[in-house]
Formats: sequence, C-alpha cells, structure tokens
Amino acid sequence: MRVYNFAPGPATLPLAVLEQAQAELLDWQGSGTSVMEVSHRGSAFMQVAEAAEADLRALLAIPEHYRVLFMQGGATGQFAAVPLNLTAPGESADYLNTGLWSGKALAEARRYVSVNVVADGKESNYMSVPPIAAWRRGAAARYFHYTANETISGVEIFEVPNLPGAELVADVSSTILSRPIPVDRYAVLYAGAQKNLGPAGLTLVIIRSDLLGRARDVTPSVLNYTLMAESGSMLNTPPTFAWYLTGLVLRWLKGEGGLSVMAERNARKAQALYDCIDRSGFYRNSVARECRSRMNVTFRLPSEALEKQFLAAAEAAGLANLAGHRLVGGLRASLYNALPEAGVAALIDFMRDFAHRHG
Amino acid sequence: MRVYNFAPGPATLPLAVLEQAQAELLDWQGSGTSVMEVSHRGSAFMQVAEAAEADLRALLAIPEHYRVLFMQGGATGQFAAVPLNLTAPGESADYLNTGLWSGKALAEARRYVSVNVVADGKESNYMSVPPIAAWRRGAAARYFHYTANETISGVEIFEVPNLPGAELVADVSSTILSRPIPVDRYAVLYAGAQKNLGPAGLTLVIIRSDLLGRARDVTPSVLNYTLMAESGSMLNTPPTFAWYLTGLVLRWLKGEGGLSVMAERNARKAQALYDCIDRSGFYRNSVARECRSRMNVTFRLPSEALEKQFLAAAEAAGLANLAGHRLVGGLRASLYNALPEAGVAALIDFMRDFAHRHG
Repeated sequence: MRVYNFAPGPATLPLAVLEQAQAELLDWQGSGTSVMEVSHRGSAFMQVAEAAEADLRALLAIPEHYRVLFMQGGATGQFAAVPLNLTAPGESADYLNTGLWSGKALAEARRYVSVNVVADGKESNYMSVPPIAAWRRGAAARYFHYTANETISGVEIFEVPNLPGAELVADVSSTILSRPIPVDRYAVLYAGAQKNLGPAGLTLVIIRSDLLGRARDVTPSVLNYTLMAESGSMLNTPPTFAWYLTGLVLRWLKGEGGLSVMAERNARKAQALYDCIDRSGFYRNSVARECRSRMNVTFRLPSEALEKQFLAAAEAAGLANLAGHRLVGGLRASLYNALPEAGVAALIDFMRDFAHRHG
Repeated sequence: MRVYNFAPGPATLPLAVLEQAQAELLDWQGSGTSVMEVSHRGSAFMQVAEAAEADLRALLAIPEHYRVLFMQGGATGQFAAVPLNLTAPGESADYLNTGLWSGKALAEARRYVSVNVVADGKESNYMSVPPIAAWRRGAAARYFHYTANETISGVEIFEVPNLPGAELVADVSSTILSRPIPVDRYAVLYAGAQKNLGPAGLTLVIIRSDLLGRARDVTPSVLNYTLMAESGSMLNTPPTFAWYLTGLVLRWLKGEGGLSVMAERNARKAQALYDCIDRSGFYRNSVARECRSRMNVTFRLPSEALEKQFLAAAEAAGLANLAGHRLVGGLRASLYNALPEAGVAALIDFMRDFAHRHG
C-alpha cells in the first residue's frame, strides 16, 4: 500500500514513474540488462540522456544560448562550484540570506570570494524576505545569489528579483519545475534532483553559455562547468539511474500538461492547506503571507506534546513524513509536483478531525 | 531474458540484488514508499547506511582506525580530493603511470601538487607495469598514488607495492571486493561504485583516521574528507538509492562467502578465459603475463572486420557489451564479481566456435 508521502526530500516520486522503473528494472528495452548496467556512452543510454535534456528544455523553455549540465554533488557542491566557475580570486559576490540554505551557500562561497550579504532575514527569524528596497548591493559583485525556496522555514521568493545589471544565480532545488520560470533572466540556475526532479544523486545546472570558460585552475574537474559542458556531462561516469529516472519524471510532467498545469495544481494544493491552517484556530503558520512557500508548508500545534500525537496519528492514517526539520521542530508538509491533490485533501480532512478532537 | 553482461562499468549487478530492489521498489519495508523517497536522516535509511558500512568493514577487514566515507563525484572527483585533502600548496606527490586512468589521476593532481611520475609504462604501450626497481620516488613526496587496475588495457597490479615510508593511495575502482586486500597497508583507498560495488553515482573512500583534518581551505565541502567523516557521510543528501543498492550487493557478497571465495572464483574465471585466448592461435592478448587483469580481459582478433563480426554474433548469442574501449578498439570481457562463472563458460564456448568457423 502506497502512502501519501510529504517528505521534504528525498521526496515522493510519481507512481507511474516508479511503476515503469520497476517493470523494466531487470530487462530494460529488451536489452536483457538493467539501465543501471549499461555504458553511459552507449547509444541506448545516450538516447535517455538526450531525451531528458530535450524534455527539460521544452518544459522550461530554455533558450538555445543556455547549457544544461547533469552533475553530481548536490546543491552543496554547487555552493562551491558557482564562485569557482564565475569569479577570479579577490572578486566579490552578493548573497541574500533568507535562512539555512542561503546561509550555507554564502558560508561555502566565502572560501573563494568576498561575500557581500545584501540583506539578512534574521530580524524576522527568517519568517519573511527582507524587502528589495533594503538590499545593499556590492558595487563590484560578479553575481547575485539567492535561494528561491527555504525548505526548512517554508519561505519562497516568487518574483525574479529586478536588479538591473546583476548576474542572477539561484538555488532552485525545491522549486524547479513547480511552475514556469523565465530562464533568460538568470546567469545560472542549479538544483539537487531529490525534490522535484528525481532521486538524490543528480544535480542540474542551467548556465548561460557565455559564462563558460572562466573556471579557476583549482576547480576540481567534476565541478568545472566548462569541462562538463564540453563533455556533454560525461566527463566521467554520471549517475545513470538517477538520470534515467529524472528523464521519466520529465516525460511524466509533459504528459500531465507541463509547468502551467503544475503551477495551477501546486497553487491550489498550497492554498487549500494554508486556508485550513488559518481557519482552524488551532494550527499556525508564522511565515509572512507574501512568501509562504507552495512547496513546504510549515505549521505548529498548540503544544509539542500535541505535535507528537499528531505525527503518530498521521503516520497511522497513511500520511507520512510530516515532521518538521530537526533544527526547528513542528510540522511540515512538502507538496512537490508528485504529491497529488488527493493527498492534500486527505491531510486536510485529517487535520480538521484532529483539531476537532483536540482543539 | 537476462543476458551475460560483460560491460566494463556501469557493470552487471547480482541478479538477486536486482530482484530484491525490484520487489520493494514501490513499498520498501512496508513503509508505503520507495527507499528513494525517504529522508537519509530517518531511522530506516540510517539502518541501511550503517549496515552497508558494517558489511563492508567485515568483508574487507577494515581496521578501526580507518574511516569509511560514502561520497559523490566518482574516482574523477577523488583525483582532486586526494591532493586537496592530503597536501598543502607547494608539496609534492609520487604517481605511477600505468595507463589512461593513472594518467588522468596525475593530470588532475597537477592542479594542486608537484607531481613526480615515478615510472611510466608508455615504453611497453602500457602493456606492462614498470618494475618496482625502476621507480624513482620523490624525496619529499607526501603520498604515492597508483591505479590498481587499468580497465582499458586490462593491466592489474596484484601486490601491494613495498615502498618503505610511503603513504600509499590507490584507485581501486575496478578491483575492490574482487579479493581480500590488506587495508592497513594504505593511507587512502577509493573507488567509484559502478564496477564491483553498485550503481554509478556513489564513491567509496577508506582513509586512515590520522590523515583527516588536513584539507585545504579551497577544498569544496563535498570533497572534504574531514567534513564527510564528521557528518557520517551526510554533510548533504547522499545518493540514497545507490547507497541502498550497494548495501544489497555487500550483503550478497557475504552470503556468497566473502572475498576469499570471490578471489578464487575470479581467478578461475580469468584463467579460463586467458587459457582460451592463449590456446586458440586466433585470439591474442598483449598484456604481460604477470599483470594480466582478472577484471578486464582484453583481446584482439586477426582483423577488425572479424572483430565486428564477433561482436555482433556475440550480442545475438546473449553475450553483451564485449566491445573494447573506444580509444583502443578490440574486445574486452569484464569479469567483475557479479558476472557468473557460467557466463565465462558461455563466452568461451562461443569463442571456440567462432574461432573454429573463422580461423
């Protein structure tokens, strides 16, 4: 029996994708082997790799002058790769600090560049994004980095920041493919796969081509965008199964109608859950309205004892992995693309009932 | 229908492992989710991670003062990680060049250290390993690096080099778990998973604990051994499915009887195939006898036209992925742990028949 899985990542995958992967796990395309057991350079896998890129390009309307890279190391690897590939020693970069993930990104960047924190959400305990009017950009910053969604607090930035002259770099690990985005407004977009793309172990990078060729000499080859672009992301053996499964997810997304459909669906899911919270007089979400995440809905109950009870009862009711991040506690429902609307409806029913019994 | 898959990596996996993965792909341990869909920090996955390490330690008899790290980026990532973690700027390291992979390792190392090539097999066209008496070690080398098996030429180093005072570092991507090795003779061992461990996307590092704490400031965190050790290889989201599947392979190896049994089986497999080649008067292998690889058996036919014919006929007979590396051509049969003795017997039968018809 499958449950509704609200895990923040590694996250739930589309059932149809898992079913296909299961069906062909021992014998892929009549090859008599698993897709995991063949060369990444063979024609069969090359077709998987190329189809995944083509589908991603179609879904996100990626312009021709952008390259798509399939890498390893997660977003944490990109925290280093971005400054290593975009700056020279002694240069500086702007970072917006909206919570744990942007904090980690800028801490890693400090190994390589002078980091200018344009604004820091700590005054609001990272429950809101500092207003753009208050951002203090560095005069010589080579790029501007922000985290599109903070999965722990549940804080999302919906608009592309309007910063004339800035080379925008964004960690979109938890929002990619959840709605259309104007790729051409960015210098670099990157994402770990394990939320909206596929299983953990694959990292996606979308980079404007003219930014290639600048990697520092000390950049490990596996994090070098230029070498990865030149080799079609096959500088060394890529994580083939994760790439294949991501390809199945992309194909599924196209079948569902693409990112406009996903955006509507995700907006409905989040709205329904926030409405349930706001109207309950029992649950509370502390994030500023305008930046409430559509991907990670955080909420608290009147006491930690009730939160424990809630978690156990939800688990028993087939509503899995609702615990908040270990650093902040509380509850969190992650509503990525593969989490169906029926799952949100079931959660809301459960929450109303629980509040009724304990409120 | 499963075929006998002689792919050099990503390589064949044990059938029993794939069958278990398939059976529980939608519902793992009664969780109602796939193992791919749960948190790496949850207790269920932590048990997978810990069991994998415990089984690896038991199989390789890894001493307590060694740490085991599960990383990303492949052996190519380690080509940078080794000098970044073991040396300071301006220091030097010894490298033995026995072919393409050791050549790549030393080229990447040159970004970080002064590389002293102790010996180079190019005089023999990398068909033999230069004798140890001819190796010229650097006086101040911080470590000595070699590649235990060159998968392209099929050249293996069976003995641990006896180099008093040297900190031995070895790329064991294609030999790990194929036989027992004395881990305590090494400073660092590393391996990409996709030959004898599991699917591509996981990288194993075994390091003597006293070598931790030396990473350079410019080391990306995802390649920093110290940070990886401190976090139990969960500095960031690891490739959970690859880790899980590697765990199943390790459990399978224990069930098969461990590495002594594997060593005997692998010796028999390679011996039978080399005997077939040597006695044929048709096939030829050009590697010096004492370093013929047990993992990758390379051979040529009298003409390239016959090689093409051989490949197509073998494929049709259910003997898959026997093409040599694109840089060198010819044929190559990779005989990792998961390739059964029956597969080698079937290949030998086919080769005898083919030679009889075309010789």
